[in-house]
Amino acid sequence: MCLMAARQKLSDGEVSARLSRLSGWTLSGAQIQKTYQFRDFSEAFGFMTRAALAAERRDHHPDWSNSWSRVVVSLSTHDAGGLTELDFEMAEEFDRLIPH
Amino acid sequence: MCLMAARQKLSDGEVSARLSRLSGWTLSGAQIQKTYQFRDFSEAFGFMTRAALAAERRDHHPDWSNSWSRVVVSLSTHDAGGLTELDFEMAEEFDRLIPH
Amino acid sequence: MCLMAARQKLSDGEVSARLSRLSGWTLSGAQIQKTYQFRDFSEAFGFMTRAALAAERRDHHPDWSNSWSRVVVSLSTHDAGGLTELDFEMAEEFDRLIPH
Amino acid sequence: MCLMAARQKLSDGEVSARLSRLSGWTLSGAQIQKTYQFRDFSEAFGFMTRAALAAERRDHHPDWSNSWSRVVVSLSTHDAGGLTELDFEMAEEFDRLIPH
Repeated sequence: MCLMAARQKLSDGEVSARLSRLSGWTLSGAQIQKTYQFRDFSEAFGFMTRAALAAERRDHHPDWSNSWSRVVVSLSTHDAGGLTELDFEMAEEFDRLIPH
Repeated sequence: MCLMAARQKLSDGEVSARLSRLSGWTLSGAQIQKTYQFRDFSEAFGFMTRAALAAERRDHHPDWSNSWSRVVVSLSTHDAGGLTELDFEMAEEFDRLIPH
Repeated sequence: MCLMAARQKLSDGEVSARLSRLSGWTLSGAQIQKTYQFRDFSEAFGFMTRAALAAERRDHHPDWSNSWSRVVVSLSTHDAGGLTELDFEMAEEFDRLIPH
Repeated sequence: MCLMAARQKLSDGEVSARLSRLSGWTLSGAQIQKTYQFRDFSEAFGFMTRAALAAERRDHHPDWSNSWSRVVVSLSTHDAGGLTELDFEMAEEFDRLIPH
């Protein structure tokens, strides 16, 4: 029930409201995207591993690319044809994984 | 509901029956244990990463150790004070991750 | 000495010869690229973890992207301004990591 | 040459001197050991992945175990029959991977 709700497509207004509470994420078509810059490959891949665990736990996976110390993450809910609450929850969770 | 059932402690008879359908797992007190032997560290850690994803998905985690190409896995449901269906499901899932 | 040699830019003829011995890799500008298709995210990320270990061991890292069960890998030696022996060795190593 | 030196067995005095510069590591027979406590499994496994990359880079691997948020690491140089400079370098590197 709860997960069903989280996977319903958000309206443009809801997307804007949710996006304004995040830092570094931008809207790109039906996706939100962020570029994470780490110190080196090890730190980048450590982040990716923890993000992979979070993705598997929610059964919701990012489209992402990595080049050495940089990771670009795109989130969207393909089944819903756009952005859902699940994408924003995951964006917040990924942000919490960044080393300070 | 389904997950509650999976986390109920199994009787000794149920444990024996479930154990007999697995290969390489042995009963050790309130745990089942298996030693996996891989070709090298990379293959061992590749297995561990996939097992970690499976563990996080089920929110049920192994006690395990690794030394180069060897991984020893122990499974038990601490909350239930013994072995549950969840442990045997995870044992089967870990076995499916072994490269052939 | 050995590593220096491995990081020297190959001629077009050498690239063609090396490429012809690989399967599924294509030349794209100054890079070679391959799309790996796995069964699911777990298998894809297990491959990525082993590939990350191989990359770190050689201190030579791929540009790559992942979407669920698909991994696209690009290899090039940025310092050499093109393709080197190191890229082809890594391509062969990545291919050996695919589950059969 | 450099790596050969790093893999020579240290004397008891050298071990004591090196150990005194580390925090949380204890001598246990011919090994040094440390227990890392993380916040949860994700943080623990993120550490393990980065430690695995460091181990593969040096071709020197830990004996370690994990239980949810705890990771116990043992280091020794089996070929040298005891502790070497390589073990202490790796201990320092693992310590640098801890999130603050």
